[in-house]
Amino acid sequence: MLSYSFEDTGGDSLYDYLYKCIKTDILKGNLQADEKLPSKRMLAAHLGVSVITVENAYSQLLAEGYIYSKARSGYYVSPIGLAPKAQMDTAAPAEEDDDQGPAYFADFLASGADADAFPFRIWLKTSQQVMRDKKDELLKKPDAGGCMILRQQISRHLADFRGLKVSPRQIIIGSGTEYLYGLLVRFFGADTVVCLEDPGYPKIEKIYMSNGARCVHAGIDRDGIRISELRDADASLVHVSPSHQFPTGIAMPARRRYELLSWASEDSSRYIIEDDYDSEFRFSGRPLPSLASMDAGGRVIYINTFSKSLCPTLRLSYMVLPKPLLKQFYDKLGFLSCTVSNFEQLTLAEFIEDGHFERHLNRMRVYYRRKRKRFFDAIRGCRAAQRMHIIEEGAGLHFLLRIDTSLPDSEMKKILARHGIHIASISDYYVKKKPEMEHVFIVNYSAIDSSRIEEAADRIAQSIEEAQETASQRDCAG
Amino acid sequence: MLSYSFEDTGGDSLYDYLYKCIKTDILKGNLQADEKLPSKRMLAAHLGVSVITVENAYSQLLAEGYIYSKARSGYYVSPIGLAPKAQMDTAAPAEEDDDQGPAYFADFLASGADADAFPFRIWLKTSQQVMRDKKDELLKKPDAGGCMILRQQISRHLADFRGLKVSPRQIIIGSGTEYLYGLLVRFFGADTVVCLEDPGYPKIEKIYMSNGARCVHAGIDRDGIRISELRDADASLVHVSPSHQFPTGIAMPARRRYELLSWASEDSSRYIIEDDYDSEFRFSGRPLPSLASMDAGGRVIYINTFSKSLCPTLRLSYMVLPKPLLKQFYDKLGFLSCTVSNFEQLTLAEFIEDGHFERHLNRMRVYYRRKRKRFFDAIRGCRAAQRMHIIEEGAGLHFLLRIDTSLPDSEMKKILARHGIHIASISDYYVKKKPEMEHVFIVNYSAIDSSRIEEAADRIAQSIEEAQETASQRDCAG
Repeated sequence: MLSYSFEDTGGDSLYDYLYKCIKTDILKGNLQADEKLPSKRMLAAHLGVSVITVENAYSQLLAEGYIYSKARSGYYVSPIGLAPKAQMDTAAPAEEDDDQGPAYFADFLASGADADAFPFRIWLKTSQQVMRDKKDELLKKPDAGGCMILRQQISRHLADFRGLKVSPRQIIIGSGTEYLYGLLVRFFGADTVVCLEDPGYPKIEKIYMSNGARCVHAGIDRDGIRISELRDADASLVHVSPSHQFPTGIAMPARRRYELLSWASEDSSRYIIEDDYDSEFRFSGRPLPSLASMDAGGRVIYINTFSKSLCPTLRLSYMVLPKPLLKQFYDKLGFLSCTVSNFEQLTLAEFIEDGHFERHLNRMRVYYRRKRKRFFDAIRGCRAAQRMHIIEEGAGLHFLLRIDTSLPDSEMKKILARHGIHIASISDYYVKKKPEMEHVFIVNYSAIDSSRIEEAADRIAQSIEEAQETASQRDCAG
Repeated sequence: MLSYSFEDTGGDSLYDYLYKCIKTDILKGNLQADEKLPSKRMLAAHLGVSVITVENAYSQLLAEGYIYSKARSGYYVSPIGLAPKAQMDTAAPAEEDDDQGPAYFADFLASGADADAFPFRIWLKTSQQVMRDKKDELLKKPDAGGCMILRQQISRHLADFRGLKVSPRQIIIGSGTEYLYGLLVRFFGADTVVCLEDPGYPKIEKIYMSNGARCVHAGIDRDGIRISELRDADASLVHVSPSHQFPTGIAMPARRRYELLSWASEDSSRYIIEDDYDSEFRFSGRPLPSLASMDAGGRVIYINTFSKSLCPTLRLSYMVLPKPLLKQFYDKLGFLSCTVSNFEQLTLAEFIEDGHFERHLNRMRVYYRRKRKRFFDAIRGCRAAQRMHIIEEGAGLHFLLRIDTSLPDSEMKKILARHGIHIASISDYYVKKKPEMEHVFIVNYSAIDSSRIEEAADRIAQSIEEAQETASQRDCAG
């Protein structure tokens, strides 16, 4: 007969404790498969507990399949054929590498936002409003494209600021542009070939590839992607950022845009993905119209995000599908749930509607323009100024800095790193092509603390002087 | 010629108003399928509006598929046969199709949440706290797995409530289980073959397939998925819900669980995806332990969601990867951004830490237990009670109802629909196999208003009586 001491049940109820004891005996093999268990009454008497306690323990074991019952006979141990226990935890977990790597004085590869920049107070007030006034809306599941009231607000915003007139139905909300790229691959099919700009942002290629698409590349000249190479690439999708190409900063002129639209119009399977990621930040002149607003043939899929303009950890992006694709999209992927929570969709909708988003953008534009100007002044005033050339594109959260040096970019970067400057050069972003641009570095100033700007410029100057010495020593030696 | 008065457009633009008028006429059948519409010019002249107005209205109708165009001929009404809505996934899940289709008295396919059920006040207070105290954390981009403090809270919760001891690093946060299934396909590769339970939830197959995986099926018996069929299926992944299979409600007993683990252990490429979607709602006995907690070999990927337990529109789910897969996961997909905003991750972390989540679950368990009980009482007390059999599985937000009838399920459902009852039968959920269970209906009671329960039961009773008449007339005739 089973014997267990109930003196210390470790805080468990009697039945729970009994259930665990029997389970352990089954797992350890102390109770054999198909062995008959004592009747509830007998076991209760034997252990000095109530029949109910035994009954509860048996029910639990039964529900979990550790024992089985035979009508008019009683309870038996299930033949559970013990699984191997020993392999546990052989491979050690890859431990965190969060805060590793050298701490740079200035990291121009990091992108982030100042805590001061995000309008916490207004955002909180807006979400309060939403939770008070829109309870039902908050709990109502939207269609695959997202909450209609946010889509209406975005549609209005696009009309006002990007010259883009689209119906809210065409707007599809998703949790980040990365998610939307993946959604497009699922929509067009995994055998899709996407042409990317070279040089370009390497993560975009990784995302397309991890979704099963194949990527090819076309080079760029001073007007943007080379149409001849795009043609040769034999892709059905092309991914571009006509307002502000990364990393070159090129704004694609109208002529090239029409060539691109014309490429798309030649075959019904061709579409252009316009990644308009930082068009909100243009510091001189009017913002360029979006490519999508020039598209009469329904061949441009426009993508933008609030992660850049509002907050990088908000994960709220959208794409605009040409109308003729809408039905197809819903037929194929309409079963999906929107990946952004209603709480944030409705808060953002209210935030835009109340004019807070526009005000925030204006404020950030002033903020970044000042920061940018401060950086330009620091560079122009520093001791190696004559060897540093700002390539000013008037837009976006990065600018380009050409350095006069004969050292290759890789060596220059090492010297800069020794001076606490983490920076990339355009040549780093060439994927397939041979770099055509040397000595041009990308200063992404969005994450750097403003108070460090002058010293950062000075450290770049020091690095340039060191590079010059190295180069001249080499010349002498050679 | 179409004639509409533009005197009161209800605030709509002219084109929008015209678009709605024509759409209504198409839906009502006033405009017949394939009927030619007047030319833009003619209609504009006739109505006294500009050609652009008509053009915009036609474009909108075209984009939405209400009309089609023939080259050099004009516009025609699409043959929409009035039910593009109805054919949308009859067998399919709950969530679809918000405000469309007939309004049922009781919709047992809908899943939703009562506005009263979500703890708005506490959630708001918690997010207030987070925005006040955790500004920096809110703006700091987490790694691909999500915010560490939420992962720590989930890890603790899993240890306390699901007997699952995992390191926070093993937990990967994503915006909904649908997203996580896709992520798994991207991780294991698009050539992955996933075995699904048949009958099962059809949306899961759609999601895997839209991500490029191939799906195969294995039937289930009273203990859950048939291991022999799983073996024959030759898949490397199997997707199961051992705590509460949908739609049969089966809780997989320990024996079958070990067989499943044993299947996985036989080949290093095999993994089990445990979808523990509503394990929080068990109404009798202790919750069953998770399959993952029985897994000594690191072959189970555990998935769960807060959408079910907290709020369907929150889009916050997670999976637990076995430790040996972690490094591989980060090598392959570590470049991805987490798809849930920090704001919601940190709010949820605080919500769990402060004990609100546990209290919410307890409250909801009581709430659903009452609702369930009220339903059982209503069924047992109604006039066709002797022909209705509740198949009580003691868990989850649905139960099964077997109806004594000789009519096939499709006919029975039609009669029920005529009485305002929208319900699915288990036979609807068979994908490849021939239905083995007839006359068993799924009562998903989560979204139905409690005050309607008694009348819903009565309407089911009426339907059963009507079915009986139909059947006996048929017998007489035959």
